[in-house]
Amino acid sequence: MSDRKVSRVIVLSGGMDSAVALLWAKQQGHVAHAVSIDYGQRHRKEILFAGQLASLTDTPHTVVDMSSLKGLLPGSALTDDSVEVPKGHYADPTMKATVVPNRNMILLSVAVAAACAHDATHVVYGAHAGDHPIYPDCRPEFVEAMWHACSVCWYEPIELEAPFIDKTKAEVVALGEALGVQWKYTWSCYEGGDIHCGRCGTCVERIEAFEIAGVHDPTEYAL
Amino acid sequence: MSDRKVSRVIVLSGGMDSAVALLWAKQQGHVAHAVSIDYGQRHRKEILFAGQLASLTDTPHTVVDMSSLKGLLPGSALTDDSVEVPKGHYADPTMKATVVPNRNMILLSVAVAAACAHDATHVVYGAHAGDHPIYPDCRPEFVEAMWHACSVCWYEPIELEAPFIDKTKAEVVALGEALGVQWKYTWSCYEGGDIHCGRCGTCVERIEAFEIAGVHDPTEYAL
Repeated sequence: MSDRKVSRVIVLSGGMDSAVALLWAKQQGHVAHAVSIDYGQRHRKEILFAGQLASLTDTPHTVVDMSSLKGLLPGSALTDDSVEVPKGHYADPTMKATVVPNRNMILLSVAVAAACAHDATHVVYGAHAGDHPIYPDCRPEFVEAMWHACSVCWYEPIELEAPFIDKTKAEVVALGEALGVQWKYTWSCYEGGDIHCGRCGTCVERIEAFEIAGVHDPTEYAL
Repeated sequence: MSDRKVSRVIVLSGGMDSAVALLWAKQQGHVAHAVSIDYGQRHRKEILFAGQLASLTDTPHTVVDMSSLKGLLPGSALTDDSVEVPKGHYADPTMKATVVPNRNMILLSVAVAAACAHDATHVVYGAHAGDHPIYPDCRPEFVEAMWHACSVCWYEPIELEAPFIDKTKAEVVALGEALGVQWKYTWSCYEGGDIHCGRCGTCVERIEAFEIAGVHDPTEYAL
């Protein structure tokens, strides 16, 4: 890969972690593309925030409509309207209801395809240590296995990066603050309402991360 | 995985290999679901054939619309109308024009998601040895890496199977004939016209495979 120009594609959900990952990637060098996926998520509103983040950083941005996946993946509170979004702490076992089966492999596969098509060398995603208890596809062993798959899926290896895999959410927020993330352009709430609900797992995690990091939280919550 | 009921999800394109893989999987045991993906392919007609194959075998079938991927993946003859479908032998370097970046990781990620959601234990896809020269995502090292990723992407391991990875296309046809595949319900041609063109790489491969296997080819070609 020695003579290839380093260039990154980023999985950009519009949440805090991917916002930080975007600025982290910009700091590393050239960001070729940001990719967001509409997988039928209840909070697809996050994609509008992804668009704003991409725009603020002059990053080409593509939204891939995979909303028909919704029919194939019943049972997750994020894609099945009949399943309620659980309230409480993000690491609580009840949060399993918010897991979308194999979501990150799907997101990564599309981002890697974009990297192949646009001759980028790296793909970045923002999984962090706080995700590990509940989400199998955010764990180090998943990242490592996907790293190997990405190294052989194309004529040139695509390098998968998960720079926050060992960081807590609060550490990600602290890094993002240092990098200048404009938090008001990030969206977390799984409910996808007008403002953040403040009670679902990811809202609780958001509030807690700002507090622990000692960073001002500009978010308006319905609490 | 000892006490889980073995059940398979199959990536069903509507081509010959996946038709054989479907009957192979039925022979092994329960097939929970067949998944086809509209990724904006010029020959999306193949999906109608996939539907017929699923129907003939009483297999639940879902088509996932990912046709908006087309905009993200320029440069492939299969998804970019401005790129002509090359004519000639399937293993010829000109066939690189038909490669859709990272297609198989995308297809597998969706099929694995279906397996997770429907409590299936295995995912089957029909990559064979004839694909190796041109398509990186049909090679044994890709299958092995994805096998590892599928084993850790969910709470239970999903086992990836590529039963034809060491077989030639002719061997796959011979196996399919023995299993009773109704070849008239399979579609290969990348052009996606009314009948098979007989001149594109996959038509040439189809004709050759029937000949070598000594199996009657019921296909009507435009030749």
